[in-house]
This record gives sequence, structure tokens and C-alpha cells, in this order.
Amino acid sequence: MDVETEPLVVVHGGAGALERGGPEPAHEAEARRALADALGAALRRLHEGGSALDAVVEAVAVLEDHPRFNAGRGSALTSQGRVEMDASVMDGARRAAGAVACVRTVRNPVRLARLVLERTPHVLLAGRSAERFARAKGVERVHPRTLVVPEQRELLRRAKRRAAASGHGTVGAVARDAAGHLAAATSTGGVVNQLPGRVGDSPIVGAGTWADDATCAVSATGHGEALLRVAFAHEVDAGVRLAGLGLDAAVSAALARLSALGASGGCIALSGRGAPVLAFTSAAMWRGWASASGETHVALIPEP
Amino acid sequence: MDVETEPLVVVHGGAGALERGGPEPAHEAEARRALADALGAALRRLHEGGSALDAVVEAVAVLEDHPRFNAGRGSALTSQGRVEMDASVMDGARRAAGAVACVRTVRNPVRLARLVLERTPHVLLAGRSAERFARAKGVERVHPRTLVVPEQRELLRRAKRRAAASGHGTVGAVARDAAGHLAAATSTGGVVNQLPGRVGDSPIVGAGTWADDATCAVSATGHGEALLRVAFAHEVDAGVRLAGLGLDAAVSAALARLSALGASGGCIALSGRGAPVLAFTSAAMWRGWASASGETHVALIPEP
Repeated sequence: MDVETEPLVVVHGGAGALERGGPEPAHEAEARRALADALGAALRRLHEGGSALDAVVEAVAVLEDHPRFNAGRGSALTSQGRVEMDASVMDGARRAAGAVACVRTVRNPVRLARLVLERTPHVLLAGRSAERFARAKGVERVHPRTLVVPEQRELLRRAKRRAAASGHGTVGAVARDAAGHLAAATSTGGVVNQLPGRVGDSPIVGAGTWADDATCAVSATGHGEALLRVAFAHEVDAGVRLAGLGLDAAVSAALARLSALGASGGCIALSGRGAPVLAFTSAAMWRGWASASGETHVALIPEP
Repeated sequence: MDVETEPLVVVHGGAGALERGGPEPAHEAEARRALADALGAALRRLHEGGSALDAVVEAVAVLEDHPRFNAGRGSALTSQGRVEMDASVMDGARRAAGAVACVRTVRNPVRLARLVLERTPHVLLAGRSAERFARAKGVERVHPRTLVVPEQRELLRRAKRRAAASGHGTVGAVARDAAGHLAAATSTGGVVNQLPGRVGDSPIVGAGTWADDATCAVSATGHGEALLRVAFAHEVDAGVRLAGLGLDAAVSAALARLSALGASGGCIALSGRGAPVLAFTSAAMWRGWASASGETHVALIPEP
């Protein structure tokens, strides 16, 4: 297989600050294992003949289920102490997209986003209606309490004391399949202590997620409002398509626009050929990639 | 005053099909008057020293209040027969944005979108939370019933019979103020017979609305899902900024991407210098512009 075009999966577990002294070793090992699990699940789908879209949904669903990431179980809590989740997927082959915002009772918002893509004429469904749609389609629903983890309760308590939201964190995946198709998916629990009903970049096609076989697949993470204000994921696409930049340079240019707003973030990106791009301007970003030929790489801090 | 950079206001009242034989003369006169009123209200704000942002909010609020346009009073009804409104604003001077989605009890969603911009760290608030925020900020709220007009009830009845949604329709404005700043605003009642909770391009910064003093201000209308899938308003910005196109050519290129998805639509756009661009691939688009020096123009069908 041509290594330049071989199937690849890339995941991220959120860009953000680095804890003082780095993460606790037990937490770090757990996060690395979860990222490797997500990559493994997505690769299995590709090996079974699944599409890039199948792969990114599987990868993100694994990270949603993992309590250490801010998506699905482990989501950040709103100022009212509740879970509110957003997710989106985009299929580069059809440039088709699906997304959900402000859902509270769905175990895997990314799977619901995919159903919006496949089963409705719409792109984005929000709130209770998204949950009614989930019920109608037999998507697994859970009591919102089961999605709340003690660590997020503690983060909310601290955020309220400091009257400042701390950290972002989102999960995402991009993939290239054997047919050369691209897909992207992003899922988040939002920002700790956010106003209920706040929607960031993650469910917004063009901001948190983009995929077009002709250019690239992108999943972003970081300061959601700033990512919206630069239309981040679409900015990477436009850099490749309209400015003729390489994927690496297009990602750097989009991150520079984010920096110009005083915000930090990162993304994972992939085109039809070549290596993935995993870049960030925050102190750290959980990330990893795996190729069909068996290479796997997981990292947190910047690498030389 | 340099006519190239004089203050300007541009509005649209939605791209869509043309009724067989054209609109009823009484309806057409009413729509023309409403567009002229919106332009007049916005120009007055500019004359009083208001910003481009003030102007677009005033223009859109006038159109929201007018029952013949699908925004505010006169909004399209969901499959459950309810009003659900979305709106966004963007200030090109700061590249700051505010938006609301799925609000039911706010007389002027565009004013609420502006408050999200000015009074929260967020860009987009959805659903009941947006309404709680409206209540907290003293924004005028109304009984949803008062926003329903008989024409929209009839459109919903027809859409259900044909099992097909008919027409789109959205309102929007872009403006350039005396300081050369740009702003854009868009507001909609969505698509007749849509799933409750469906969110289209109008409240999405990058899709329905964009403003950046360095490039242009854009408000789009048309098939919302397709506009999201081409990140329409940001595509126009990227055409100017990254591909070096004139505003006219950038709008045409973005409309071509929409056509490639089999969808139609239109937009109004304005840069720091020169004439406004009002373009559409649908059969018709209600639109108008007015300059500080007193020129005013309103139209529905394509012009030579």
C-alpha cells in the first residue's frame, strides 16, 4: 500500500492548559490508553471495509464514553450543574454534515449527529427536539446523571469560586479510508460554568468540523467562541483551496488568525495524501494517530 | 463625501421562488414599502452617528416586525405549528459576533443576538436559555401566538399536504458607517414544516452572516442546509482575502459552490469601498439598498 495514501485515523482529546507539573501519571496513562483505544476501534472499522465516516464516529464514541474527556460521559457542567453536549460529523465524499447541540440524555452525541446527516434533510438539530429525534430513532439514551463525573463537579466548584471558566477540552477525529475519502467528527461537553444553552464551535460545520475530499478533513478544539469567529475549520479548507497552501501551512495560518483574537486552540487535519497535521497554540493537546500499516503515536505536549 | 466610501445600507427579504405571475400587486407594494422603511430606519441611525452595527440591527428589526417576511412576526411554522426563530449579528470592526437559535417568545431576535455579542462571553445561545437571557436583560417578549400570521398557517397546511417544504425566506442587512466599519445581521423563522429544533445558516457565523472590516460584510439567504455545507458567508470573505477576488467575483464563486450542491440562494455583500453586491441564483430575491447621499433602490426579480 502506498504510504502516502494509506488509510489513517487521527484523534484529539482537547487543547488546553497543561496542569502544573504535568498530568498525574495515573491520569496520563489512562488518557493515553483511551486515545489508543479510540484509534484501535476506528482502524478496525476501516479494516472491516468501513468508510472514513464510520471510523471517525467510532473513534469519537470511544472518547465520549471515556470519563477523562470532556464529551459524553465526563462532560463539563453548565453554571446550573448540568451536562449539555454538542457534536458534529462531516462526510468529505458528499460534503454532507449532521450535528446536534444542547443534548442532555444521549450517550453518544456523535452517533446522533450522524443520524441527522443520514435521516433528515437538516444539518443541525438543537435541544429537546434533538432528543425527541434520538428517541424516535432508537438511539441509546441515558439519565443525564450518569454522564456527570466527580472531577467535573469539582471543576465547576472551582470555576464558580474564581468566577472564571477553566480549560476547554473537546474530542475529535479525522480519517482517510481505503477509497481515499475523508471524514471528520467533533464532540464536546462545552465549557465549565457556561451559560446553559451556550453553543460553541464543536457542532458548527465550518467552525469545529469540516471535511471535503477535494481538500481536507479538520476537527478543531480550543476557545469555542474564537473558533466560531474565525470559522476555523473552513479557514483551513479555504487556505488549501483558495490560497494554495499546503495543509500544514493552512493550519498554521488558521491558528494565527485565532491568536490574533487572543485565543488559543488546536486541530487535527488530514488530506487525501500524506501525513496528518496535529498542531496547537495552547500549552498542550491530547492527540494521536494510527495508520493502517500499524504505526501508532500518542502525545500530549509539543514535540520537537 | 466620497461616493466610493460613503455610508450605505443594504437589506434583503429572502431569496426564493417567484409566485406564478409574480406577487400580488398589493403584497408587492407592501414588501417594497417595508424594505424602504428598513433602509430608512437604518440610515437614520447612521445619520445620528450610529455604527454599522446599530444600522443593521435597526434594519433587521423593522423587517422582523413586518408580517410579510419570514422572521419575527410572520415566521414560518415548524411541523408542530410553532414559531422558532434564529438570528445573528457580526461587527466587522471587532470581528465579534452574537447569535440566538430556536427562540419563541422574543419580538426581535436580532436585538437579542446583539445582546449576546455585547453582554456575554459567548457567540451563540439556543432555546429556552436564550429566552431566560432575554428575560434577564429586559428584552421585549411576546406571546408566541402574536408572531403567527394566517399566511404562514396556510403555507404550513399546504406544505403538509404536499409533504414538501415550500420556499425559504429570511431577512438580513449589511451596512458601512461613516468610520468605514462594516456589520451584518440575519434573522429567520426557518423553513415551513421543518422539524422543531432545526437550525439553518441564519444564526451561524460563517454560514449566514459574516463581517470583517478588512474584507466584507455578508448576509445570506436560501437553502439553509446547503449554505451551512459551503460555509457561505465565510466563503465570500475567503474569496476576497485568500483568492484575491473582487467582492462581486467572490459572491459569484460562493453561489457557484451552492449550485454545485443543487441548491439556490443569494446574498447581500458590502466592502469598505464601492457599490454593494446583491446577487442570487434563485428566481427572485427581495432586496434594496440606500446610500447616505439619498439614493434608494428596491427590487425583487433579476435586473439587466
